[in-house]
Amino acid sequence: MHITKTDIATMNRIERLNLINSLSGIKPANLIGTVDADGNENLAIFSSVVHLGSNPALFGFILRPRGDVRRHTHENILATGVYTINFVHTHFTKEAHYTSIKADNGTSEFDMSGLTPEYLADFKAPFVKESSIKLGMTLQQEVPIEANGTSLIIGQVEHILLPDGAMADAGHLDLGSHAVAGISGLNTYYSFQKEARYPYVRDGYTLDDLG
Amino acid sequence: MHITKTDIATMNRIERLNLINSLSGIKPANLIGTVDADGNENLAIFSSVVHLGSNPALFGFILRPRGDVRRHTHENILATGVYTINFVHTHFTKEAHYTSIKADNGTSEFDMSGLTPEYLADFKAPFVKESSIKLGMTLQQEVPIEANGTSLIIGQVEHILLPDGAMADAGHLDLGSHAVAGISGLNTYYSFQKEARYPYVRDGYTLDDLG
Repeated sequence: MHITKTDIATMNRIERLNLINSLSGIKPANLIGTVDADGNENLAIFSSVVHLGSNPALFGFILRPRGDVRRHTHENILATGVYTINFVHTHFTKEAHYTSIKADNGTSEFDMSGLTPEYLADFKAPFVKESSIKLGMTLQQEVPIEANGTSLIIGQVEHILLPDGAMADAGHLDLGSHAVAGISGLNTYYSFQKEARYPYVRDGYTLDDLG
Repeated sequence: MHITKTDIATMNRIERLNLINSLSGIKPANLIGTVDADGNENLAIFSSVVHLGSNPALFGFILRPRGDVRRHTHENILATGVYTINFVHTHFTKEAHYTSIKADNGTSEFDMSGLTPEYLADFKAPFVKESSIKLGMTLQQEVPIEANGTSLIIGQVEHILLPDGAMADAGHLDLGSHAVAGISGLNTYYSFQKEARYPYVRDGYTLDDLG
């Protein structure tokens, strides 16, 4: 089946939204936690967190244009300079998905979803207690994307919270054993199963050297 | 376990690389296909493809700084303006991973890995025949990321190639049934299993309305 740019442009809006979102694959599911200048909490689900570099440790995520439901996240990050990235696990995908509701100003998605905020001393943004892998981030740069008015929000890792022993294997986290969840499109949730681990491919390696 | 920015900075390099790459979650595995101005093919694995928008249909991915092993992909995209994004499936993760080898100029990772190039008429970049979900992209914009010298490469979808019938469900692709693969860190491959699909969360919905 071959779909062209012209077909995409003339497609039904919902079908296009579902198709194009599906085509980015099964993505990590994350909850981003923020507060406004008065300490009012916000929590929202994202599936666009991307690794930018390890030293310094930088991650990015995509924010849709202002005026959108995601605006509290944006305003809060600009106001406080900090946010948290919390892994979604398979046992609370429903609560995580529910944070996509358009909450009124002053209503916390933590309260609405039943997820629990928790804090580190001297770090303003709330973590999700139910998540076992979470990051405290400081805003580094907002990169506007002219092509469609979205932004890439870049942050540096300030804090990593992990289960004890998770890092035993040379820094590799066995995410399969922590039941982390992925998202396809806008609303389908997946679990993961580890299939293979291959070595770094050195000069002169043949395909068979990968095992 | 609590790891701070200072701990990250003083960590062993390999441990830091593995840990920080793991913290971006289990990401979609994609092969990006390009040619240089003379038609020499290049194929490389990426795990940073991100959805930017549906109308127009735009995807981004992160390129590491020039001078790196990924430079052929970068140079080829700038030279021809086109590239392909091909889903990796669980039955060829080894071949896909092998494309991360530092191949000599003029040596094709298609030949080295045994994956098969295929072409659409009037589109210069090679698709991966073994992949059942693939996109032909035209370069839209390169966004330099000052924070660490990487780039966000933004492209528009020109062609979508899919199995017949894949789009039957209002545009949703059932990626679980196509055995697509994900990557954690730099070298661990995962399969996916569908767990739940929730409705779009409308105003006034309670948690129970999600089913």
